[in-house]
Amino acid sequence: MLKLSVLALTVSMSVAAFAAPQKNEPIQPIEPAVVTDAAKVELGKQLFFDPRLSKSGFISCNSCHNLSMGGSDNLPSSIGHNWQEGPINSPTVLNSSLNLAQFWDGRAADLQEQAGGPIANPMEMGFTHDLAVGVLASIPQYVQSFQDVYNTDTITINEVTDAIAEFEKTLVTPNAPFDQWLQGNDDAISADAKAGYKLFKEVGCTACHNGPAVGGNSFQKMGLFEEYVTDNPAEGVAGLTGDDLDRFKFKVPTLRNVELTYPYFHDGAYWNLEEAVDVMARLQLGRKLDEEQISQMTAFLKSLTGEQPSFAVPMLPPSTAATPRPVPFEKLAE
Amino acid sequence: MLKLSVLALTVSMSVAAFAAPQKNEPIQPIEPAVVTDAAKVELGKQLFFDPRLSKSGFISCNSCHNLSMGGSDNLPSSIGHNWQEGPINSPTVLNSSLNLAQFWDGRAADLQEQAGGPIANPMEMGFTHDLAVGVLASIPQYVQSFQDVYNTDTITINEVTDAIAEFEKTLVTPNAPFDQWLQGNDDAISADAKAGYKLFKEVGCTACHNGPAVGGNSFQKMGLFEEYVTDNPAEGVAGLTGDDLDRFKFKVPTLRNVELTYPYFHDGAYWNLEEAVDVMARLQLGRKLDEEQISQMTAFLKSLTGEQPSFAVPMLPPSTAATPRPVPFEKLAE
Ligand code: HEC
Ligand code: HEC
Ligand code: HEC
Ligand code: HEC
Ligand SMILES: [Ca+2]
Ligand SMILES: [Ca+2]
Ligand SMILES: [Ca+2]
Ligand SMILES: [Mg+2]
Repeated sequence: MLKLSVLALTVSMSVAAFAAPQKNEPIQPIEPAVVTDAAKVELGKQLFFDPRLSKSGFISCNSCHNLSMGGSDNLPSSIGHNWQEGPINSPTVLNSSLNLAQFWDGRAADLQEQAGGPIANPMEMGFTHDLAVGVLASIPQYVQSFQDVYNTDTITINEVTDAIAEFEKTLVTPNAPFDQWLQGNDDAISADAKAGYKLFKEVGCTACHNGPAVGGNSFQKMGLFEEYVTDNPAEGVAGLTGDDLDRFKFKVPTLRNVELTYPYFHDGAYWNLEEAVDVMARLQLGRKLDEEQISQMTAFLKSLTGEQPSFAVPMLPPSTAATPRPVPFEKLAE
Repeated sequence: MLKLSVLALTVSMSVAAFAAPQKNEPIQPIEPAVVTDAAKVELGKQLFFDPRLSKSGFISCNSCHNLSMGGSDNLPSSIGHNWQEGPINSPTVLNSSLNLAQFWDGRAADLQEQAGGPIANPMEMGFTHDLAVGVLASIPQYVQSFQDVYNTDTITINEVTDAIAEFEKTLVTPNAPFDQWLQGNDDAISADAKAGYKLFKEVGCTACHNGPAVGGNSFQKMGLFEEYVTDNPAEGVAGLTGDDLDRFKFKVPTLRNVELTYPYFHDGAYWNLEEAVDVMARLQLGRKLDEEQISQMTAFLKSLTGEQPSFAVPMLPPSTAATPRPVPFEKLAE
C-alpha cells in the first residue's frame, strides 16, 4: 500500500511539475496554530509553567517538557518528585496535538486527558487534583482568569487540563526547511537532505513515519527484524491490553524536531541521531545502511526542525495567605 | 544621620513642590537597564536557562531564581542536585546588580564572582567549572557565540560568569507604581500605600531599606530589639569573619518585588508579608504596629512590584555527539 501511494504521488507530481505550490509526499507540512481563544491559551501557558501544580512547588510541566529544549528534558528518564527516576523517556510536547493518542502506549485519548496524569502521578509532580485546584482557587488572578475563560466561579481539574491542552495545541513547529522544500523552495534543504529523504522513502521509513508529524499516527512493534535489547521494563501497549501481540508496541514518535529530542527511543538509550537511524533501519526494516546513507538520512531528519514556539516567559500570579504551602521535603509533610 | 537626611530631603521637596519631576525621598526609582552588548546579554540568558550547566542536566539558574516567579523559587530553602535541601532561602536575582555584594553574607563581591558558585556547589548544580565549560565547548552554537562576544576560541569559566552577570544586570524592574508616584504621578499608588510609606519612614525602616533597591546596600544585624528565633544554623557575616559582632548580620534584602519573593527572611520562615512587617517592626525597631499600620505598610510594599523582565523563552542549542552526558542519577556516575 505504501509503495502504491508513493508511486501515485510520483505520477501526480510529474504532471503538476513546477506549477504545483506544494509537493505531494507522504509527509505534509505542519500548519501554523490557529488560536481561537487567546485568553485560554495564555492561562494554559501559565499553568504549564507553574510549579505550584506539584507537591514540592518545584516541578512544572516545563521541567520535563522544557520549551527551551525542544519540549523534552534531554534525559534518558525524567527526574520527578523527590528526584525519583521516571520509568520511560519523556516525549516532546511539540506537535503532540497531532498524535492519534497520548503517551508511548496511547493510554490517554487526547491532550486534555493526558494533562491530568502527571499532576497526580507520585513519580512526577506528586500532587493530587484536589490540592492543585485548591492552590489555584487561592490565587485571585487565577480565579479571575478561569472566570473570564470558562465563566465559572468554581475551578475544577477539567478546566485546568482543558486550558493546558489548549496551550499545547499552539506548540506546533511550522516552516521547517523541509516544509519550505515541500512547498516549492528547492534550495531550502541541502543535497544531502534531499538524498536522505529519497532514501527515507525508498527503504520504507515512511511506512511508519508519515503525515504532518512524520509519526504519531500509529502504534508499531519495536524490533521487527531484530529484537530491541533494553533494561527498561516497559511493555508498550501490552501493558494496557495484556495481549502478547501488543508486546513492545509503542506509538511511533514524531520525527519533527528530532534533532532536539535526544536521547532516543522509549528508554532514551541512544544519544546520537545517527545511531537511532542505524537501529531503526536494522530492527524495523532489516537493512544495514552505510555511513553515507546514515549521514544523508540524518541531514534529512535535521531539516525537520521547525520554528520553535516563541513567547514571553509567562508571569505567574503570586500565592496568597490562603495558598496551601508546597511540601518540598518529606519531613515537612503534614 | 538618617533623620538628618530625611529632614534635608523634606525641605528640598517643599521648595521644589509640584514643579519637581521627581520627589526627593530616601528611596529612588529603579533605572531601566541600558544594554550595551545585546549579544552578550543573549548569551548570558541562554546560560541562565541552561540545565546543562548542572551535573544532572536538570537544574539551571532559573530553577531556583525562576523569572516567572519574581526571580526566586518561593520555597523556604532550595531544592538542589539530587533533591538536597539548601541551607538558606534563595534571594531574588531581580535588581541584584544593585546589591553592594552578593549572598546573604556578602561573600561574593559582584555578580560575576557569584555566578561561579552555584555551578560547582555540590548542594546546588553539583557540577565543576571544567565540566560545565566542557559541555559548552562541545556545542558549536555556543562556541560561535563566545567567539562573537569575547573574540576567543577557548571558553573559560570567566566568560561564562561574565555573560551570566551581564544578563542579570538587565533584570531590573523599573516603573513600579511607587516609582511612578515618586516621579510625580500622585494617583499611581493608593491612599493606604501612601500612608504605609509615611509610616515606613517615620518608624525608621528606611534606616536599612533605602536607595533604589530599598535595601541591598548594607549588612545589618537581624534581631536588634528581640532575638530572631530560628532553626536555621546560618551565622551571617560571622560565618566569614569569625567575629562574634558579625553574628546574625545579613545583607539587608531589597524590598523591590517583595510581594513576589515569599517566603521571607534568610530561613524563609514567614510566608505572609504582613507577618514579615510585624517581625521587622518588633525585632529591628522595638515597635508593635497595629493591624491597620501593618496593612498600610504592606500596601506600600506591594507598590514596589515593578515591571518584570520580559523576553522570549530562550532557545538552547542542542548537544552534540561530543557533549558529555548528564548524570542525573548516581548509579549512572562514571
Ligand atoms: C517528571 C517528569 C514529567 C512531568 C513533570 C510532566 N511530564 Fe509529561 N511526560 C513525561 C514522561 C516520562 C512521559 C511519557 C510517559 C509515558 O508515555 O508513559 C510524558 C508524556 C507526556 C505527553 C504525551 C506525549 C506523547 O507524545 O505521547 C504529554 C502531552 C505530556 N507529557 C504533557 C505534560 C504536561 C501537560 C505536564 C504537566 C501537567 C507534564 N507532561 C508533566 C514526563 C513528565
Ligand atoms: C515498522 C515501523 C517503523 C519503521 C519502518 C521505522 N520506524 Fe522509526 N520508530 C518506530 C517506533 C515504534 C519507534 C519508537 C521505538 C521505541 O522508542 O522503542 C521509532 C523511533 C524512531 C526514532 C527515535 C525517535 C525518538 O524521538 O525517540 C527515529 C530517529 C526513527 N524512528 C527513525 C526511523 C528511520 C530513519 C526509519 C527508517 C530507516 C524508521 N524510523 C523506520 C517505528 C518505525
Ligand atoms: C539549587 C538552588 C540554586 C541554584 C541552582 C542557583 N542558585 Fe543562586 N542562590 C541560591 C541560594 C540558596 C542563594 C543564597 C545563598 C547564600 O546567600 O548563601 C543564592 C544566591 C544567589 C545570588 C545572590 C543574590 C543576593 O541578593 O545576594 C545570585 C545573584 C544568584 N544566586 C544567581 C544565581 C545564578 C547566576 C545561578 C546559576 C549559575 C544560580 N544562582 C543558581 C539558590 C540557587
Ligand atoms: C536595622 C536594620 C533594619 C531595619 C530598621 C528594618 N529592616 Fe527589614 N530587614 C533587615 C534585615 C537584615 C533583613 C534580613 C533578615 C533575615 O533575613 O534574617 C530584613 C528583611 C526584611 C524583609 C524580608 C525581605 C525578604 O525578602 O526576605 C521585609 C519585608 C522587611 N525587612 C521589611 C522591613 C520593614 C517594614 C521595616 C520597618 C518596620 C524594616 N524592614 C526595618 C534590616 C532591617
Ligand atoms: Ca527523546
Ligand atoms: Ca567583574
Ligand atoms: Ca524569599
Ligand atoms: Mg476534551
